Amino acid sequence: MPAAPFPPDATVSDAGEFGLIAALQEIFEQGEHVLVGPGDDAAVLRVRTGHVVVSTDLMVEGRHFRRDWVDAADVGARAAAQNLSDINAMGGTASSLTVGLAAPADLPAAWALDFARGFAEECAKVGASVVGGDLTRSEVLVISVTVLGACTVAPVLRSGAAAGDVLALVGRQGWAAGGLAVLGRGFRSPRVLVEAYRRPEPPYAAGQVAADAGATAMIDVSDGLLADAAHVADASGVALDVRREAFAVPEPLQAVGAALGADPLGFILGGGDDHPLLATFATAADVPTGWQVIGSVSERDPDQPAVTVDGQAYDGPTGWTHF
Amino acid sequence: MPAAPFPPDATVSDAGEFGLIAALQEIFEQGEHVLVGPGDDAAVLRVRTGHVVVSTDLMVEGRHFRRDWVDAADVGARAAAQNLSDINAMGGTASSLTVGLAAPADLPAAWALDFARGFAEECAKVGASVVGGDLTRSEVLVISVTVLGACTVAPVLRSGAAAGDVLALVGRQGWAAGGLAVLGRGFRSPRVLVEAYRRPEPPYAAGQVAADAGATAMIDVSDGLLADAAHVADASGVALDVRREAFAVPEPLQAVGAALGADPLGFILGGGDDHPLLATFATAADVPTGWQVIGSVSERDPDQPAVTVDGQAYDGPTGWTHF
Repeated sequence: MPAAPFPPDATVSDAGEFGLIAALQEIFEQGEHVLVGPGDDAAVLRVRTGHVVVSTDLMVEGRHFRRDWVDAADVGARAAAQNLSDINAMGGTASSLTVGLAAPADLPAAWALDFARGFAEECAKVGASVVGGDLTRSEVLVISVTVLGACTVAPVLRSGAAAGDVLALVGRQGWAAGGLAVLGRGFRSPRVLVEAYRRPEPPYAAGQVAADAGATAMIDVSDGLLADAAHVADASGVALDVRREAFAVPEPLQAVGAALGADPLGFILGGGDDHPLLATFATAADVPTGWQVIGSVSERDPDQPAVTVDGQAYDGPTGWTHF
Repeated sequence: MPAAPFPPDATVSDAGEFGLIAALQEIFEQGEHVLVGPGDDAAVLRVRTGHVVVSTDLMVEGRHFRRDWVDAADVGARAAAQNLSDINAMGGTASSLTVGLAAPADLPAAWALDFARGFAEECAKVGASVVGGDLTRSEVLVISVTVLGACTVAPVLRSGAAAGDVLALVGRQGWAAGGLAVLGRGFRSPRVLVEAYRRPEPPYAAGQVAADAGATAMIDVSDGLLADAAHVADASGVALDVRREAFAVPEPLQAVGAALGADPLGFILGGGDDHPLLATFATAADVPTGWQVIGSVSERDPDQPAVTVDGQAYDGPTGWTHF
């Protein structure tokens, strides 16, 4: 990795738009599917599948991340993970991303380069390339990411769940919310939870496996387990019931719950940012290894909540809202 | 067009993320290439060409637009035009866009809907669909757009210009800069220039025609004619000379120049935001109808500027920088 071409204390304003872009481009390696990479009016990517899967997300400083809680490389990794996970949730694999950075003039250039390194590290986990971007000035640091990918079988939508299906989850859930609660109180431990918040570990291989196994509906849990479950319930026109007993609350979450006087299951049911996958399958026999059955799908009763916990309405936080 | 589902004075915070997204989705019509549109974890698009062309841009309030100078529909049209133009500059045609909106909680919901209508109007000019997006809260209004498209022949890069080529331009140039200068002085006329700033009219059909005609290099002029010409010169390793006499300064620009005591040619040489195309062709005979030859390409002399005007260094503004 070449050293930054600026003095250690240079700001993005000192480095200048084009100098900084040149340094950023060196960080992003291009896959063989990239016919034209960063630096022209647009990138050109080879597409062999006859389709492209695309999603976009924004992250705003102070709302989606804090620079004093998460270092630049971790912000980059989180921004990439959040987007790679959206392709995972369709049953696909990401190939290419673009990144927009609207940054204050006094942002250290080293922060931008470290952000790019963390972003590139996360993309390397799935073999995806950063093929383009934009850099501009803003009083508030805003990161915009668009991800492109493809599926080998039909994409798994939110709308395919049917009564009688089983509800299953793969990947850590509640860990990042536990880490966020810890950071919010000014603590830095349990370290494993703080690390889970800083560097989510989405189960990138699981989406395609679930699609191959015939998952009927799928979503990634980014806002909160129950909130994202409600998106599946609404899109599919079904009701989902989640069973508390399906979850073994991990020891670090129990410790945080005890320290904060909170039910640790709340982190699991209402927490976001871990990016596990939540999916429905026609039968328990279809559920791939590594997934855990956590509930069931039934007919929707318009007088009942779309999502219940142990058959009852849940009165805790189900996730976060953006406004 | 259905009426907004909110009271006229509702803010985006009043409308809520999901209510606003539902209203926005009604505005965006989907082309037949859109296999999965907005509302799932990702959109899925049919790709028949074996490749996809992709570009992304950010616009920040106060830097790229002012809400008191340009109404919501115009901000939307400008944001779309800027991105559609990037595909045009590759010699391609845009098919699909995603839009991220990071907005203050007190932004009127009606502003967001009008923005979307203007955005959709501009996309309709080329038959492109808005297939996804993101909506979140930010103290500063930031718009992020990613555009996808395809080329029917090889994409035209910035790097293909060679000594002996001719330099040509198609589309209005300098009009938006004139309009911006007028608005900056608190005036609203000449109206044709203010309108040119509010609603650029990029020559969307011209990029593909130029590619078919064998353009050797191409770029869209978004930052400034001489600044963007320098990108072609640097990418191609050549020198470009622009001839003043090639430009007939339109009457409204002459009027603004006289009123502000400025050389009106400065708007043409240094102005951005009109999104004309600048391209090089091997011979004048290759230049398609509607294009104007404005200069020539020669060997690069490392001791001379990459871009000259009438053979001399140009000492006026050549474009704007983002930091």
